[in-house]
Amino acid sequence: MDDLLRRLRTGLPAEALITDPDVTASYAHDMASFCEAGTPAVVVLPRTVEQVQHVMRTATALRVPVVPQGARTGLSGGANASDGCIVLSLIRMDRILEINPVDRIAVVEPGVVNAALSRAVAEHGLSYPPDPSSWEMCTIGGNIGTASGGLCCVKYGVTAEYVLGLDVVLADGRLLTTGRRTAKGVAGYDLTRLFVGSEGSLGIVVRAVLALKPQPPAQLVLAAEFPSAAAACAAVCTIMERGHTPSLLELMDRTTVRAVNRLGNMGLPDTTEALLLAAFDTPDPAADLAAVGELCTAAGATQVVPAEDAAESELLLKARRMALPALETVSTATMIDDVCVPRSRLAEMLDGTAGIAERYDLTIGVCAHAGDGNTHPVVCFDHHDQDESRRARASFDAIMALGLELGGTITGEHGVGVLKRDWLARELGPVGVEIQQGIKRTFDPLGLLNPGKLF
Amino acid sequence: MDDLLRRLRTGLPAEALITDPDVTASYAHDMASFCEAGTPAVVVLPRTVEQVQHVMRTATALRVPVVPQGARTGLSGGANASDGCIVLSLIRMDRILEINPVDRIAVVEPGVVNAALSRAVAEHGLSYPPDPSSWEMCTIGGNIGTASGGLCCVKYGVTAEYVLGLDVVLADGRLLTTGRRTAKGVAGYDLTRLFVGSEGSLGIVVRAVLALKPQPPAQLVLAAEFPSAAAACAAVCTIMERGHTPSLLELMDRTTVRAVNRLGNMGLPDTTEALLLAAFDTPDPAADLAAVGELCTAAGATQVVPAEDAAESELLLKARRMALPALETVSTATMIDDVCVPRSRLAEMLDGTAGIAERYDLTIGVCAHAGDGNTHPVVCFDHHDQDESRRARASFDAIMALGLELGGTITGEHGVGVLKRDWLARELGPVGVEIQQGIKRTFDPLGLLNPGKLF
Repeated sequence: MDDLLRRLRTGLPAEALITDPDVTASYAHDMASFCEAGTPAVVVLPRTVEQVQHVMRTATALRVPVVPQGARTGLSGGANASDGCIVLSLIRMDRILEINPVDRIAVVEPGVVNAALSRAVAEHGLSYPPDPSSWEMCTIGGNIGTASGGLCCVKYGVTAEYVLGLDVVLADGRLLTTGRRTAKGVAGYDLTRLFVGSEGSLGIVVRAVLALKPQPPAQLVLAAEFPSAAAACAAVCTIMERGHTPSLLELMDRTTVRAVNRLGNMGLPDTTEALLLAAFDTPDPAADLAAVGELCTAAGATQVVPAEDAAESELLLKARRMALPALETVSTATMIDDVCVPRSRLAEMLDGTAGIAERYDLTIGVCAHAGDGNTHPVVCFDHHDQDESRRARASFDAIMALGLELGGTITGEHGVGVLKRDWLARELGPVGVEIQQGIKRTFDPLGLLNPGKLF
Repeated sequence: MDDLLRRLRTGLPAEALITDPDVTASYAHDMASFCEAGTPAVVVLPRTVEQVQHVMRTATALRVPVVPQGARTGLSGGANASDGCIVLSLIRMDRILEINPVDRIAVVEPGVVNAALSRAVAEHGLSYPPDPSSWEMCTIGGNIGTASGGLCCVKYGVTAEYVLGLDVVLADGRLLTTGRRTAKGVAGYDLTRLFVGSEGSLGIVVRAVLALKPQPPAQLVLAAEFPSAAAACAAVCTIMERGHTPSLLELMDRTTVRAVNRLGNMGLPDTTEALLLAAFDTPDPAADLAAVGELCTAAGATQVVPAEDAAESELLLKARRMALPALETVSTATMIDDVCVPRSRLAEMLDGTAGIAERYDLTIGVCAHAGDGNTHPVVCFDHHDQDESRRARASFDAIMALGLELGGTITGEHGVGVLKRDWLARELGPVGVEIQQGIKRTFDPLGLLNPGKLF
C-alpha cells in the first residue's frame, strides 16, 4: 500500500490522489442496488493521458487491480470497487477537444458529461443523439463503457453507433489508437466497437472520436391510453411494421402510470392499463402523429392525445422521465431490470412480467423503450424485509429467464457489471464465454482491469 | 492430399467437392488485380452448417489452411487461395430463412446475393441498404467479410451497421453464436462487429441476423458541373455542414467523366473538371435538390441539373455506375484504390491524387463517395509495360500515403486482403498490430483461416 502510493505520486500531482478512507469509500459503488462492492486502496483523478499511463504502469508493476469510473450513474455495479483496488476516476478529463461540423465529429475526453457535449454541439447545429436518462450527470466515457442507450435509440441507435475511434491506455500503460476520424473505414478488426460496452475491462478510454448528426426538428409527442398492455404492444408492432420512424416510442404500465400520478400530480388517467408515448422529429410531425394516432385507435386505444406544441410535448415527456423516480417511492428499494426482446414478443414480455409480479407477490412497474423491445421492469420491495428481498431477487432472475426464453437479451443498455454476471454465461453459452475470456486475456493478461465484472 | 479428400468425403456429398484442377483454378482469386494467389487443393461447396463444421474439423485435424469465399467480387485479394488450401465457397448456402417486418430483421445464409435479399425484403416494404457496386453478384457473407459499403452509405451507413448477430463456425469446427435478434443488446463484448470486416480470418459466418429499414421514397438525383475538383469538394463540405442528409453524394473527376462519355455516349459535359451527383429520398426531394443546387451554384457550379423524375434520376446514376467499367477501357489494366479521408480533406486528396498522376506520368481517374470522403482513384496502366506497371504500383502506394497523411484510412470499404497487407501495419501502428494479432490467435490459434490476409 505504501509502495503503491509512493509510486503513484511519482507521476501524479498530490491533488490527483485521494487516500482518506471516508472519501474513497464514497467512490466504492455506482447506482445499482445490492451489488457487492469492495474498499478501494486509493482513488486517482488524472487530468492527462500520461497520468493514466502512469497509473496503469504502476498497477501492472505492483499487480494492483484498477476500477475505472465515470459519474457512477451505472445500474449494474460495473463501476463498483474491488478490495484494495485503484479507483481510476476519469471525471477530470473533461475537455471537448474539437467539434467539426463539416466532418460531423467531436473529439472528447472521457469525463465530458453527456449533456455538456449535447449542448456544445447544438451550438453548431449538430446533435449527439445517445440520451441515457442520466444524461445530465453521466460521462461519455461511462456511456462508452456501458454502450448506453436512451429514449431516442428507436430512431438514432445506441452509443456504439456514434463511436468512430478511441485512444485507449492498455493494462500495461501502452497507448492504443483504434478506428478513425473518417465516415468509413475497414482497416483491420473493429477494435473500437470491442471497447464499447466492455465496462472498462479491456483498457481505459482516454479520448474518443464521436460521430454527430444534424440537429433534427423539435419532436412532437402523442400520448395514447390503452385498456391492456397487450393492446399497447400491438400498436407498437403495427407502428413499426407500417414503416414509421418515431424518434421515441415509450410504454408505461399501469403501476408506473399510477406511481407517476402520485408523485407528480400529472393528471394521467389513473384507470389506464398502459400508456404509450410516440414522438416524431420529422419535417411534418403533426401528420405522422395523426397517422400513428389512427393506428393506436385501431389497436384499441381509448384515448389519443397529440401534443400541439413543444410545451405540451415536454409535459408528456416529463411523465416518462418521472417513471423511475416515481417507482422508487413505491417501497424502500428497487431493482431495475433491462431485458430487451424482439419487439414482436413485447406483449408476451409484459404479460409474463405481470405474472411474475403476481407469483412473487411483489409490485413490479414496467416502463419500456417499446419501439426497441427494451423493457425496464422495476421490482419494488422493502429491503428491511428479508423474505421480500429474496423474492425480489428471484423475480428479477425470473424476468431475465423470460427475456431469454422470448429470444431476447438480459441487458439492452445497462450492461452486465456485477448484477448480471451469472446470467451472462447463460446468454452467451460455453463457446461464447470461452472466446470472450480469450479476448479479455489478449488485452489484460494479468486480469487487473475491473476484475469481477462481466465474467 | 488423399487423406484430406478421404476425410472431407466422410461428411460431404460428392457434389460438394471439386478436385478437377482446371475448375479449382478458377476459384483461385477474386477481382483484385496483381495480388498473389496460390493453387487450392480442393474446393468445397457445403449446403449446411454441419458440413461447414465438418470441413473445419478436418482442416484443423490435418492442419490445412482454409480460404472462405463468397462471389469473389472483392477488390483486395481477400478471397485469394493459398497453395494447398481448402477453398470453402459458401455460395450454395443461399437461403433467406426469415423476413420479419415487425422486428425489421432478416435471417439469411451467407451465400444469399445482396440484390436477391434487397428484392425479397422490398416485397415486405423493407430495405436492406448496403449496396456495393457488385450488388447483383456479391453475397451477404462476402459483404460481412469485407464490411462492404456502397453508394447509399452517406445516409445509411455500411454493412457493419446492419449485422445484429451471427452464427460462426470456428477454426476447430465449434459453432459460436454472437449478438442478437433484438434492436439493442450489450451482453458481453461485441463479437458480431469483430467478425464484420475480418475477411474470413476469425471464423466462417454461416448465418446472419440483419437489420432492415423501412423502404424510403424513391430518390431524386441532381447533377452539378464544376470548373475544378476543389470547387466540387467545397460544395460537398457545405452540403454536409448545412445539415443536409443526401442519400447519395458522388463525385467524378474529369478523367472519369470523359471515360464514361466515351464508353456510353452519355452526353455529359466533356469540358467539366468535376461532376457531382446528389440524391435525396426524403418526403420532398425536389425541395432538397433545390436547396443543394443553390449551394452548388454558390460553390461555383457552372451548371446544375436536377432530375424531375425517376427516369431522369436513373440516367444520371447510370453515368456513375459506368465509372469503373469506363475507366477500365482506358488502358489494359487498372488498380482501384479505396482511400477514405475526413470529408473536410477531400479537396486535398483529389488535388494530391492529380499531382501523383502527373508525377508518375499515369492516367488516374477518381470517382468518390464524396459525402463519406471515400475516394476510389483508379490507376489505369498497360500491364505489358513493365515500367508503367511499376509506376502504377508506386502511385497506388503514394495515394495511400497521402490518405494517411490527411488523417484518413487506407481502405474505406474494400478491405485489406493481400493488396494492402503491408500498409495495414502502417495505419495501425505496432501496438495495434500486436493486439489485432492477439485477437486472431484467440480465434484461430493454428493460423488456418485465410492465412496471409490482413497481416
